[in-house]
Amino acid sequence: MREVAIIGIGQTKIDEHWGRSIRDLAGEAIVATLQDANRNQFDALFSGNMLSGLIDQQNNLGAVIADWMGFKGESVKIESACSSGASAFRAGIMAVASGEIDSAMIVGVEKMTDSAPTEVTSALATAADSDWELEQGVSFVGLNALIMQRYMHEYGWKHEDFAPFSLNAHANAAHNPNARLPFAITSKQYLNAGMIAEPINLMDASPIGDGAAATLIVPLDTVRGEKRAIQILGSGAATDTISVHSRKTPLFLQAAYLSVQRAYTQAGITSNDVDFFELHDAFSIMSALSLEACGFAEEGKGPNLGLDNEITPKGGRIPICTRGGLKARGHPVGATGMYQIVESVQQLRGECGETQVKDAKIGMAQNIGGSGASILTHILKKV
Amino acid sequence: MREVAIIGIGQTKIDEHWGRSIRDLAGEAIVATLQDANRNQFDALFSGNMLSGLIDQQNNLGAVIADWMGFKGESVKIESACSSGASAFRAGIMAVASGEIDSAMIVGVEKMTDSAPTEVTSALATAADSDWELEQGVSFVGLNALIMQRYMHEYGWKHEDFAPFSLNAHANAAHNPNARLPFAITSKQYLNAGMIAEPINLMDASPIGDGAAATLIVPLDTVRGEKRAIQILGSGAATDTISVHSRKTPLFLQAAYLSVQRAYTQAGITSNDVDFFELHDAFSIMSALSLEACGFAEEGKGPNLGLDNEITPKGGRIPICTRGGLKARGHPVGATGMYQIVESVQQLRGECGETQVKDAKIGMAQNIGGSGASILTHILKKV
Repeated sequence: MREVAIIGIGQTKIDEHWGRSIRDLAGEAIVATLQDANRNQFDALFSGNMLSGLIDQQNNLGAVIADWMGFKGESVKIESACSSGASAFRAGIMAVASGEIDSAMIVGVEKMTDSAPTEVTSALATAADSDWELEQGVSFVGLNALIMQRYMHEYGWKHEDFAPFSLNAHANAAHNPNARLPFAITSKQYLNAGMIAEPINLMDASPIGDGAAATLIVPLDTVRGEKRAIQILGSGAATDTISVHSRKTPLFLQAAYLSVQRAYTQAGITSNDVDFFELHDAFSIMSALSLEACGFAEEGKGPNLGLDNEITPKGGRIPICTRGGLKARGHPVGATGMYQIVESVQQLRGECGETQVKDAKIGMAQNIGGSGASILTHILKKV
Repeated sequence: MREVAIIGIGQTKIDEHWGRSIRDLAGEAIVATLQDANRNQFDALFSGNMLSGLIDQQNNLGAVIADWMGFKGESVKIESACSSGASAFRAGIMAVASGEIDSAMIVGVEKMTDSAPTEVTSALATAADSDWELEQGVSFVGLNALIMQRYMHEYGWKHEDFAPFSLNAHANAAHNPNARLPFAITSKQYLNAGMIAEPINLMDASPIGDGAAATLIVPLDTVRGEKRAIQILGSGAATDTISVHSRKTPLFLQAAYLSVQRAYTQAGITSNDVDFFELHDAFSIMSALSLEACGFAEEGKGPNLGLDNEITPKGGRIPICTRGGLKARGHPVGATGMYQIVESVQQLRGECGETQVKDAKIGMAQNIGGSGASILTHILKKV
């Protein structure tokens, strides 16, 4: 298998982009990526997107974006709910690794704010099991609330113990010009935020938004010696039951564990070697569960990392959400996985200013689709 | 790049499966494929599907199907409108070719009859350009009617000249137990069928339906000597503008031409070497355009092949739709591309009975997404 490297990145600000279409957002990220890579072409285009069919009445999005770019090569959309971005990234990696193509542009894009919030909530719920969860009337935040409730009950945590996840994300987003919510928050603001689905309040939940993020990948051999190239050291993907109720326990992300173990094995590293971790904090409970499944904390002890100040970019053992995470950078669902990859590259290049992780050499990104059903983990390293 | 072969196929009957869910249909095709291959596992699952989000309120379909199969490995959905099946097939090929995985199950699946016909028509229209075609009120059959109208005007054909495409498809479907419309029709029935969008009548248009078709693919080296293994000799994908009005001419399938040229080059063959062609006859005009773009007829002369009896399995120069094609086998949109692959394997194995193409050694399948926007061509050969 050919080894693969990232040679260009690009992104739009995550926002309510009322005046811009989904193709326009994808195009901005793709053009920025080509400029960053100092290239003017690619062999294939892989788009990660979840909701263009439901929200924008636009399927065949691969062709739509290719058309917008004047590109006539192959172009498909990959969908795995909120992990669509990382799924597209992995499809691109395999395409370049196979030798079938020599460069792949991968873009994650989502345009969510054209629909009414209730419609978006319904659309997001299609990431859960339509027959056995949605039919019962549970929303996506509702499912996560059930998991968090159970976690607190089982391990004796209080709601306030999850505050560091949200505070860290917002503090980091304040230095990210592309973040949806680029401001710090206080503990008081966290505790007093409006309740959505107990115990998840507004500061436990990530905001939707419109945005696109992209990378250009090529065979590693062709870019050895290029200082800004970043190697894809490991890629793992796994699946768990789509319904939460079908799992042995709702408190352990089995697919995160399987995918990270594959990625660690492929990369030849352990969790000790990871310098930062862009995890999928769609809800603060997910930060705890991801840290536990990936070997950074024992089961039920994830919140300790936050309380012990181990998750910040300034000297923490395992900095997370260094550009704001889903909580504050924002969560344009199908694009999120690609934002995580782009931000990981920024860290490894040393371009993160105030939230730069010192001497970062190996970074990890983990993208989750559904309430833990589809999970992909990627490990990146400076060439 | 590792060479790849198909070692198992499976399919459901295309029908109105009122009592069955989308996961149930996909599961039947997957289990049939494993039985056909005499295997009991696979490394990754790729699902081709267009409309589960819009019609079934179910995204993250990869996880849904994996869950149904008790599978914990990677599983994603690939979408490119009506070419989703072939796009998933190509993603699977690249994954196995890369060496990242050693076996891939690819399933195309669609469940369309749970919604009202008007809703399905709206959902199918999302394969066209939402901003610049749908907003004008044109339906998908309407776009194809404009193309057919122009073709007839430009080249002087009459509606009746397209009859052989429909008659051949129906005659072949009569011998396919999985076909949606397994009966022959007469010229009179073709000419007198109800009009949908002039000049496209009911016998020019393919029926929707529920169904799933699957294949298991592995590295060619591991199955040399196995009589039933079929080599994937060529795979090409290309894109054209999503809007028909943006093309230099609506009468030439540029993406079909680009994708078939890539596939021919990869396979080291020309159109002369192709023994049969499973083409994408969503509407009869598409049969003519595909035959022309792939080198079987000059531009504007596609209908001659039908009129000269060159498209039937019994001695025709280039048999098409040998199991009924989209017209009569049926068109469960995201599954169709995989039905074409499965049927091509049946031909190469010599399992087609009444519609068997004699001494078939090389077969070709072409799947079209949108009104010519996303086109994939695959060339298969007996090992």
